Amino acid sequence: MIPLALPEVYKLIEPGPVVLLATRARTGRANVMTMSWHMMTEFAPPSVACVVSSANHSFKALRSTGECVIAIPSVAMAETVVAVGNCSGRSGDKLAMLGLATAEASLVRAPLLPQCLANLECRVTDMTLVERMNLFVLEVVAAWIDPRQRRAKTIHHCGYGAFIVDGRRISLPSAKA
Amino acid sequence: MIPLALPEVYKLIEPGPVVLLATRARTGRANVMTMSWHMMTEFAPPSVACVVSSANHSFKALRSTGECVIAIPSVAMAETVVAVGNCSGRSGDKLAMLGLATAEASLVRAPLLPQCLANLECRVTDMTLVERMNLFVLEVVAAWIDPRQRRAKTIHHCGYGAFIVDGRRISLPSAKA
Repeated sequence: MIPLALPEVYKLIEPGPVVLLATRARTGRANVMTMSWHMMTEFAPPSVACVVSSANHSFKALRSTGECVIAIPSVAMAETVVAVGNCSGRSGDKLAMLGLATAEASLVRAPLLPQCLANLECRVTDMTLVERMNLFVLEVVAAWIDPRQRRAKTIHHCGYGAFIVDGRRISLPSAKA
Repeated sequence: MIPLALPEVYKLIEPGPVVLLATRARTGRANVMTMSWHMMTEFAPPSVACVVSSANHSFKALRSTGECVIAIPSVAMAETVVAVGNCSGRSGDKLAMLGLATAEASLVRAPLLPQCLANLECRVTDMTLVERMNLFVLEVVAAWIDPRQRRAKTIHHCGYGAFIVDGRRISLPSAKA
């Protein structure tokens, strides 16, 4: 993985792919969940809002450490993505159980997931709406991309394990980012 | 357009399509903007968070009326979507200029855009983060779908007029919504 310039991050998140959210609890144990409820809130520094249900085991680690990694899987990882969504970190080490490799991040303690096409190291910057709607705001403080997966297709969740895979790319003259 | 059951709404928003946001200012004038920074925050009642920049002409109408319509265009409307993004409602009646038809909504004053595959009538429910990050939370109070466009492909924005069109659909056994 090579560094990705932070102002490029929105191009990965804005299309709405399913992502994996990796955390590391204060105990040192890493965990991972799937996430589709996320959006950009700022270009630079890149900021992302996301909803992490308090029913998810990852919620506590995210709230208490204020750190996570958002990793973007390609369609090649679709079965792993669903497997991540179908079990809880409560029952053991999900990353090991699912054969998900990890690597050390540069600025946060949550792990990178190097099988994914991109990894975004994030710090929580706002928890105003966590109590009421489980909504966290994150700043992306470092970003990594796998150059071999630059053209990889992502997946978009439509409910109950149904996904749309990226199709063709079109380009129209736009004045705006 | 026929009514769409509200608990089905997340299946349209969660995949992350570009949407059109229609508003009607207190003056009575309707306007429309493109939006890619949105996410689900609750299944039922379906709630959506979105970022509408205070630089957008629509911001004031959304904040002052607390109402809008989120309309989901198919790829057939891609050129219109970019045209909507390339001009401002400050300079005139965008809907008329761009040949966008409108229809009366059932519960809000903002117009429906019946050329789109779905229309979500929304009321603002939380403005806590509007001042700091232009983040509105909406509740979808009524939803409409065009049955002829049920399989229509949506588009996902990757920056500067580059879009990914929906590709193939895959389905994997999932225990969760």
